[in-house]
Formats: sequence, C-alpha cells, structure tokens
Amino acid sequence: MLVRCGVAMLTETGFSATGIDTILRQAGVPKGSFYHYFDSKQAFGREVISSYAEYFARKLDHVLCDEARAPLTRISAFVDNAAEGMARFDFRRGCLVGNLGQELANLPAAFRAQLEDVLQDWEARMTRCLQAAQQAGQIDADVDCARMAAFFWTGWEGAVLRAKLVNSPAPLHIFLEGFLKALAR
Amino acid sequence: MLVRCGVAMLTETGFSATGIDTILRQAGVPKGSFYHYFDSKQAFGREVISSYAEYFARKLDHVLCDEARAPLTRISAFVDNAAEGMARFDFRRGCLVGNLGQELANLPAAFRAQLEDVLQDWEARMTRCLQAAQQAGQIDADVDCARMAAFFWTGWEGAVLRAKLVNSPAPLHIFLEGFLKALAR
Repeated sequence: MLVRCGVAMLTETGFSATGIDTILRQAGVPKGSFYHYFDSKQAFGREVISSYAEYFARKLDHVLCDEARAPLTRISAFVDNAAEGMARFDFRRGCLVGNLGQELANLPAAFRAQLEDVLQDWEARMTRCLQAAQQAGQIDADVDCARMAAFFWTGWEGAVLRAKLVNSPAPLHIFLEGFLKALAR
Repeated sequence: MLVRCGVAMLTETGFSATGIDTILRQAGVPKGSFYHYFDSKQAFGREVISSYAEYFARKLDHVLCDEARAPLTRISAFVDNAAEGMARFDFRRGCLVGNLGQELANLPAAFRAQLEDVLQDWEARMTRCLQAAQQAGQIDADVDCARMAAFFWTGWEGAVLRAKLVNSPAPLHIFLEGFLKALAR
C-alpha cells in the first residue's frame, strides 16, 4: 500500500518534493511507522521504482506482444493507451522514470543505474516488437531495431513531459507520427 | 548576477530543490537582500526563465541561421554544440525548460504558460530552418515543417534527460539520427 501510494505520488511530484509524511498520510499508515517497513527514504524510492518497472513491463508486454494486432499497430495502441492514462489524471502524472531522471542531481546515486536499467528493459521489449514488424514485412529488413527502440524511449520521455506541460495528448501523437516516419525510411 | 547564478543552478537542480539562500551564497550577494531585488521566489524564477530563453534564442539563431552551412547541417551543428555544452558540465546540467517542465506539479501555475511560450518560440525558429532546407531541396516539398519542428523539441527534451542519466552525448545523437530519418521520409 505504501509502495502503491509512492508510485502515484512520485509520478506526480517527484522524489525530492514528496515527503514521507505525505505518503504515510495518503496511505493511511500511522506516522512514525515508516522505518518499520523501510531503512530509509532511499530504500523506499528504490522499491517504488522496482514496483513501477514491474507494472510497466507487464503493461508493455500486454500491448507489444498482442498477436491480434500487426506489430506497428501495437506501438500505436501503446501510445493511445498512454494518452488515455494521462488524461485520466488530467495530465498531471507523467512517467516515474522520466520524472526521477529529470531530478537526478538531487537523488541518491544508486537511482541512476536503476533508472537506466529500467529504460534498457523497455528498449529490449520495443526491439522485439520492431523485429516482429520486420518479420511481418511492415518495416525494411535493414532497419536497426535496437537503435530505433533506443530512439523511441529517448524521445518518448520528452513527449510525456510536453503532454504534461500543455495538458493534452497532442505531443504523444506528434512523437508517434515522427517515429513511424523514421521507421518507414 | 543573481539571475545568472539562478540559470546555472536551476538548470542543474530544478526550482523546488534550489533554495534562495544557496543562490545568494553562490552569487556572493548578502543573505536577506533577495527581496530587495525580487518580490518572491516565483518572480525570480520567471526572470530566470526569461533570461535563459533570451540566451538560448540567440544561440539558436546563431546556429540555425548560419548561411555558411546547409540548413540540415545547421541542425546537426546545434546537436554537436549541445553535446559539447553538456559535456562541459559532466552531463549534470540539462535544459532549464525541460527541468522545470518535469517538476511542473510543484511550480507556480504561471510557469506553465511561460515554459510553453519558450518552446513555441524555439519551434518557430526550427520551422524556419526546415523551410530553408526545403527551399534548398534538402527535404521534400510536402514535409510539414511546423509539425516536424514540434516533433524535434518534443523528443529533444527527452534526449537531454537521457544524456544526463547515462552521462553521455549518445542519446542526443540517437535522437538526431532518428529525426533526420523522419525528415527524409
């Protein structure tokens, strides 16, 4: 429950700006009992990142491995899904990994490698989907799928940030459109 | 001097996490004299954003309007320039607009429109460069330059974030490569 609240709050306000007291209050856990569960705020943060990464990996697999759709359509479905998810929280919540990546200067050093690991896991999943698109003849055989997957997540975090800024899904769609153009090249 | 220090510090650690005291100490301005210059931390933040926007617009014009280079080469030069700039500060500093965009939930409401205005100004400058590329025959006549400029800045903020995360210019180059592929389509 603490971790679930942590995911929600850190996705909205980041790590540094979210106090342990606020999380405990939100989770309905008695004040002062935090250190019963976690050694430190840092340990809590690492657990929140792990939990988010697991949840997101499941979500990605669900969409990107959906055999009922052509591979590139799955990527569009992921973007539509993200747009709906952001709209549900009035574009206040972005991506936990992007949020924490941005406030890196103020975070415990151990967070850096963990966040990068998560992004590389997402890249691997996207790479497999692009390889499926290649096998299905949706994109050319000479497309470097791993490189394009890296391109996707690199730009995607920017798109999520901009969607929060303009309170609209438009940046997500602008990014998808550009990404598909680059693939078609 | 206060504003110049503010740009440096907010580009590294963001708005919420940077205390006025730290900025005053860094700028060598006596403690307590802050309110002689600014009504509030918010007023200071707005001034810092303006100053950064002005500096960045000059820098963009310098590179993107450089008639000695073909228009698309100017965009590559901008990316190289950004990579050098980030390396100079060990990839600790990113883009002030991206940083503040990410911590939006904790910022005064007025910052949102100001940050979006800055991005739209950058989009307009990039649009003109892409139109020049079109006139020079570097990209097809049917490319929607404004849309592609929006794509550029949307993804670029993600690339800067990732470059900070991995301590390397690689994400900037991955993004540029994908962007140029999308233009060539």
